[in-house]
Amino acid sequence: MLPEQPLIAILSDFGEKDWYVASMKAVIARICPQARTIDITHQIEPGNVRSAAFVLSQCYTDFPKGTIFLCVVDPGVGTERKPIVHWDGDYSFVAPDNGILSLLNPGMCRTYEIEPLRFDSQTRGSNTFHGRDVFAPAAAMIAKGQNLESFCTRLPKFNHEGVEFPEVLRLPMGGAVLYFDQFGNGITSLRLSRISPKPKGVVLESGDHIPFGTSFSSVPKGKPVAYLGSGGFLEIAVNLGNARVALNLEAESHFQLV
Amino acid sequence: MLPEQPLIAILSDFGEKDWYVASMKAVIARICPQARTIDITHQIEPGNVRSAAFVLSQCYTDFPKGTIFLCVVDPGVGTERKPIVHWDGDYSFVAPDNGILSLLNPGMCRTYEIEPLRFDSQTRGSNTFHGRDVFAPAAAMIAKGQNLESFCTRLPKFNHEGVEFPEVLRLPMGGAVLYFDQFGNGITSLRLSRISPKPKGVVLESGDHIPFGTSFSSVPKGKPVAYLGSGGFLEIAVNLGNARVALNLEAESHFQLV
Amino acid sequence: MLPEQPLIAILSDFGEKDWYVASMKAVIARICPQARTIDITHQIEPGNVRSAAFVLSQCYTDFPKGTIFLCVVDPGVGTERKPIVHWDGDYSFVAPDNGILSLLNPGMCRTYEIEPLRFDSQTRGSNTFHGRDVFAPAAAMIAKGQNLESFCTRLPKFNHEGVEFPEVLRLPMGGAVLYFDQFGNGITSLRLSRISPKPKGVVLESGDHIPFGTSFSSVPKGKPVAYLGSGGFLEIAVNLGNARVALNLEAESHFQLV
Repeated sequence: MLPEQPLIAILSDFGEKDWYVASMKAVIARICPQARTIDITHQIEPGNVRSAAFVLSQCYTDFPKGTIFLCVVDPGVGTERKPIVHWDGDYSFVAPDNGILSLLNPGMCRTYEIEPLRFDSQTRGSNTFHGRDVFAPAAAMIAKGQNLESFCTRLPKFNHEGVEFPEVLRLPMGGAVLYFDQFGNGITSLRLSRISPKPKGVVLESGDHIPFGTSFSSVPKGKPVAYLGSGGFLEIAVNLGNARVALNLEAESHFQLV
Repeated sequence: MLPEQPLIAILSDFGEKDWYVASMKAVIARICPQARTIDITHQIEPGNVRSAAFVLSQCYTDFPKGTIFLCVVDPGVGTERKPIVHWDGDYSFVAPDNGILSLLNPGMCRTYEIEPLRFDSQTRGSNTFHGRDVFAPAAAMIAKGQNLESFCTRLPKFNHEGVEFPEVLRLPMGGAVLYFDQFGNGITSLRLSRISPKPKGVVLESGDHIPFGTSFSSVPKGKPVAYLGSGGFLEIAVNLGNARVALNLEAESHFQLV
Repeated sequence: MLPEQPLIAILSDFGEKDWYVASMKAVIARICPQARTIDITHQIEPGNVRSAAFVLSQCYTDFPKGTIFLCVVDPGVGTERKPIVHWDGDYSFVAPDNGILSLLNPGMCRTYEIEPLRFDSQTRGSNTFHGRDVFAPAAAMIAKGQNLESFCTRLPKFNHEGVEFPEVLRLPMGGAVLYFDQFGNGITSLRLSRISPKPKGVVLESGDHIPFGTSFSSVPKGKPVAYLGSGGFLEIAVNLGNARVALNLEAESHFQLV
């Protein structure tokens, strides 16, 4: 049974100054007028598949079951990388097979290659804008309830290549900063729920010691704090400040638990 | 009677590069799939409650009666500040009680504190992302028609603390710049409809005299002008230019009517 | 026959930090609650009608027939420029008559001037925010199925003034860069489908020779390439890099085909 208003969540590195995101939504509106869209973000650093994979991993389980994720960070557009549809039992993901899906939770899944498709008389083709010409049409076809086998070929095995987060879950006594959000909070590779007892704090490469707290406000204004972030990872922040700047953190900055 | 498509307007300081806004919309789609959302802006300066209060005050009466405003500029997340629902007779506001609602028009109102709530099996909890875990769920419950008493406690009195605009309406012969829009126009604290007769112009702290006109184009290209802005306040602009830069204006720059 | 969910696509230079776009959408929600909106972009450089015309021309044919385009880049707001509705047989365009529509495909069309209108009791008026007070209401009235003659006056002839792209289609052996997208790709004035046989490459003003390829990836990482872009124009890019920076391109930079 199809929902009356299928939901497509969109993630890209297209930015917001050009018409690229609008063209994808226009194609969706043509093929499946009843579909709704939610923008995850379009401000992934151009071509940064690793960052896109992380952002997707942090939010996709918040969406209703049945949501279709249209993920277009595709520095290899026009090369032999495959356009795929990946189904994990709850959600569908439409994306290039460049590693952008490599941080999804493991589980049952099926993967399909999208076949070239001319879905209506307004269709345009290009070698450089598969977001408009391949991925958005495929997402809209799924939203419309079209059988995957009618425009895709099942792949025997899905090989998540191109992205690695070797430290996630594997270095229980330390980790590295993976991502800075716009507040300058550093989200790290350490999934905190796996660690017991809770740590007293972390020590940065600089030697700075940061106490563990329950939230930003566990420390005075301007002071650093480590805490269990909303995505389940250890985060490093400065209360009412910017940790990236104040602590001179960089992506990949390492720390140890104490 | 509930509208078929309840409307939730969202205001935050989350920016657009992370997944935070998307997670709030995902939660709304889970709890109340028929709700629609309109973004007011997510580019409030991080933690700037005063700026958020001003932006909200400038646009909320443009929305249809019944709109639910989800306002998450919450530098005190995780502290004892209360998550509230405020109803003013026409609109509902879901926000922290940190002053973000202090520029709404006065009138009849009721205020409620949101109780902790686990609304479905996908719910996540955190000390740092109440946008996703407290405020968005509450907005969606209201959109769904859920009785406020079922997940809130009525508060005897709502104390708008934390934000003051002492000069609004109180200095009929002068004022200060409150807000710069992206064109560099300075919106001031002087509600112009209260002043009669219309002024001839304003004098800035720098001594510059700016004539009063009906619009930007009342003066030649590159010249400054003061006028009745679209929100009812006196504004200062430069025709086809940027007043903030050209006149060296700053937030809080004072002026006198002449 | 009206669609159940009419579609309004919005293009402006309002940016995303203020409430201006939200106020337009709020007005639309008041007048025509069933209308949906898609943002083309709000990051047109302030007042740059030429850039807005180009962006619109690149994407409007991707939208479903019947889409209403609300285009508000209006540096002359408050002057004698006319607010118009333009219908081209497939789409409606609501805009100031300042040249923003001058790159639409030629064809049958009708043009109307929008009359001053007070459409409901919440209506606000201003000399500076016709997006909220004139253009958005007109777009919503069209979405609602209101007869154009009821709030507009037919104009005998539509004079697309103010924007020229003299080189488009007129210099078959060369052209100029018109627009940079966020990846730094330069989109040129040369509509490539008109040129046969396909060129071997282009020579920039700097003397640099750039080979022609089918996509970014026709050349090694970091190397420049010219190719048929997704909008039908010749584009200049650097594979996995930024051509604007790497080749020192500017808007209006000229090139010759070889």
